[in-house]
Amino acid sequence: MRASTVRRLRLLQQLAQANDLRIVLLVLDGVGDLRTAEQPSTALELASTPNLDALAARSALGRIVPASTAITPGSGPGHLALFGYDPLAPECDIGRGVLEALGLGLELRPGTVAARGNFASVNAAGNLTDRRAGRIPTEEGVRLCSKLRGALAASPGNELEVEIHPGEGYRFVLLLRSPDGRRLGAALADTDPQKPGVPPLELHAEDAESAETARRLEPVLAVLRTALADEPRANAFLLRGFSLRPELPSFGVLYRLRAGAFAGYPLYRGVASVCGMEVVECGKRIDDLLARVEERWSDFEYFFLHVKQTDMAGEDGNLAAKVEVLEEVDRALPRLLELAPDVLAITGDHSTPVPMKAHSWHPVPLLLHSPVCFVDETERFDELQASRGHLGTFASAELMGLLLANAGKLLKFGA
Amino acid sequence: MRASTVRRLRLLQQLAQANDLRIVLLVLDGVGDLRTAEQPSTALELASTPNLDALAARSALGRIVPASTAITPGSGPGHLALFGYDPLAPECDIGRGVLEALGLGLELRPGTVAARGNFASVNAAGNLTDRRAGRIPTEEGVRLCSKLRGALAASPGNELEVEIHPGEGYRFVLLLRSPDGRRLGAALADTDPQKPGVPPLELHAEDAESAETARRLEPVLAVLRTALADEPRANAFLLRGFSLRPELPSFGVLYRLRAGAFAGYPLYRGVASVCGMEVVECGKRIDDLLARVEERWSDFEYFFLHVKQTDMAGEDGNLAAKVEVLEEVDRALPRLLELAPDVLAITGDHSTPVPMKAHSWHPVPLLLHSPVCFVDETERFDELQASRGHLGTFASAELMGLLLANAGKLLKFGA
Repeated sequence: MRASTVRRLRLLQQLAQANDLRIVLLVLDGVGDLRTAEQPSTALELASTPNLDALAARSALGRIVPASTAITPGSGPGHLALFGYDPLAPECDIGRGVLEALGLGLELRPGTVAARGNFASVNAAGNLTDRRAGRIPTEEGVRLCSKLRGALAASPGNELEVEIHPGEGYRFVLLLRSPDGRRLGAALADTDPQKPGVPPLELHAEDAESAETARRLEPVLAVLRTALADEPRANAFLLRGFSLRPELPSFGVLYRLRAGAFAGYPLYRGVASVCGMEVVECGKRIDDLLARVEERWSDFEYFFLHVKQTDMAGEDGNLAAKVEVLEEVDRALPRLLELAPDVLAITGDHSTPVPMKAHSWHPVPLLLHSPVCFVDETERFDELQASRGHLGTFASAELMGLLLANAGKLLKFGA
Repeated sequence: MRASTVRRLRLLQQLAQANDLRIVLLVLDGVGDLRTAEQPSTALELASTPNLDALAARSALGRIVPASTAITPGSGPGHLALFGYDPLAPECDIGRGVLEALGLGLELRPGTVAARGNFASVNAAGNLTDRRAGRIPTEEGVRLCSKLRGALAASPGNELEVEIHPGEGYRFVLLLRSPDGRRLGAALADTDPQKPGVPPLELHAEDAESAETARRLEPVLAVLRTALADEPRANAFLLRGFSLRPELPSFGVLYRLRAGAFAGYPLYRGVASVCGMEVVECGKRIDDLLARVEERWSDFEYFFLHVKQTDMAGEDGNLAAKVEVLEEVDRALPRLLELAPDVLAITGDHSTPVPMKAHSWHPVPLLLHSPVCFVDETERFDELQASRGHLGTFASAELMGLLLANAGKLLKFGA
């Protein structure tokens, strides 16, 4: 990790002390939006949010920059930053295979290597004719994964523990673990040549550890290839995004917090679990999350609540839908306030402006409520008011420390 | 370069992708100004700028900090920061000799060492009587440089390629290149003792590479000394600011941009050329620049336009002149907008407040216009409105990434 981040996390770890106060981080995924010529008001500006407005009036507002000025983060980096980690550090890199596995809700123990798989079609000469096997339906992928698992079970003596999980359509996930404790390497190039007319690529390792992993993986892949040989369409497979689960210091170790993640979508549950949070099974809407938060209120000092629908509406370019989600959150807010969290932050992991139909780099509005947050003059939770708030504009990765401080969980530095 | 800068530039390089969208950076040199008891309004506030105002109303405003809080940059660092480089990194240091050479419009190939020269006067004992040779006129300097060149041509066998170029008055520039490819060192102390009554200093090298350069330079300097010995006034010379042309990764490599520099003054052309921009020959006023930009509109994706007169008016302490330049720029603005740049930024390399008659450290107002810039509530391009803009206040070196992002030239980071 970057020296500055290591220093910041070490400092937090050194100063953090446990107490009973409860912190709630409510992430409205992709909440930030744009004012443009065609869309003169943002979703936050348009939404009728009396409860959020009332809370803003007795809170401090500000803005956070997810990764770095001008950098648009994916969901992984966006959330790691909210959790206090440096999203640009190599140690925080969540590879494509790991992300796919987390997105399927798979448990990734430390040391696991994950890769994304595509079922594919090859001709008699072994050359690819379709990199997606004619986009077979999910049921077909499920059947093929069962078949592959059966083939592996029938050929013992493998030097790797292998799991194969179906994804959507032609996609699957391959998980590798070392039964003997030897570290696996994930510096393995994709076997997908990215074009038809050529055979899938051989495994190519970029360092010694990964070469040893490749040597142990080769016989496994041979079994899988043989098992698919008689398939009419999906008679081959391609592997991409080999990656190791990141090894991050946990919330408990860093911040002395028992942390619970309340998220309806697997990717976010996965990222939270990598940070050492307990993942609580939840539905997908804010009311589903709150029902579980209420049940588990005595079990944690930190609650990560993830609302996905703001981002989905942004990605769809659907302003009305984004407004509606915000109003749904607003209606649910009193239920959350009823729990009387000592510190409540409402923000996003990045902006997903409706006019862009994609994640963006724009700073994300932040509302912070605590008895010591500094009640500024902002009276509404939206982008422009946030840009005038008392908290100013700062890196998302610094938010975690601010939450701890507001909860009285950080000792004084020096005398 | 600083680790953080290297990382930022690497990240931009990793995420940058070419597209056809065009970015224009219009630099109003030294545009930022001050409100003081004696000067209650800034030049931007006083100028009648209907076109800039209209643009500001549909753009985002903010402020950039050129080098670092409280640090007043020269023109070199000020511009390198606008181009995305860390102006405080040793690799970005543009030494005095190189700056003087660039200011004369000299071509500096990689590996060239440049030094500033003064013609000077010494008495019979060899002690300095005038460090500027009685401030001889430029024509006299031109004659002396010819004489020196002739003397060098008449004494073959030098181990260095040497160029001597007259500057203003008593000043000249010495350029050194290695004909055999051995690297030259520029860690050579000034030979100017900074006071009369003593002889010029000997060449003093601060590292081994520079000691070797000094060994090869000594016979050259002996030839030059002999050539001047019979001069009535300028019978000696002093050398200062030995420096190597900085070797920066270019705009093409870093940002995948074809970049054109449109600047009427040689120093800015020189700095742009060091960054790998194509330097387009231009007149000195905004209309001259625009005429060339129009001609070359299809040749570049990035256009650097440099207006010098705002800085000159500031240095002269001439508020009316600064206002007049801004109004001239405002009148020219529709012509620039007619080209429909996809991203347009208007800012300065630093402030040159009229009351200070000098560069200063004050943040510089920035106007950013693009389809996704976030239209904030600012309605005029001036210092105070800029301080309330949606872009906030950030380091000049981060502007380049923001321009790329607004032009859709940066991929998402992580998934």
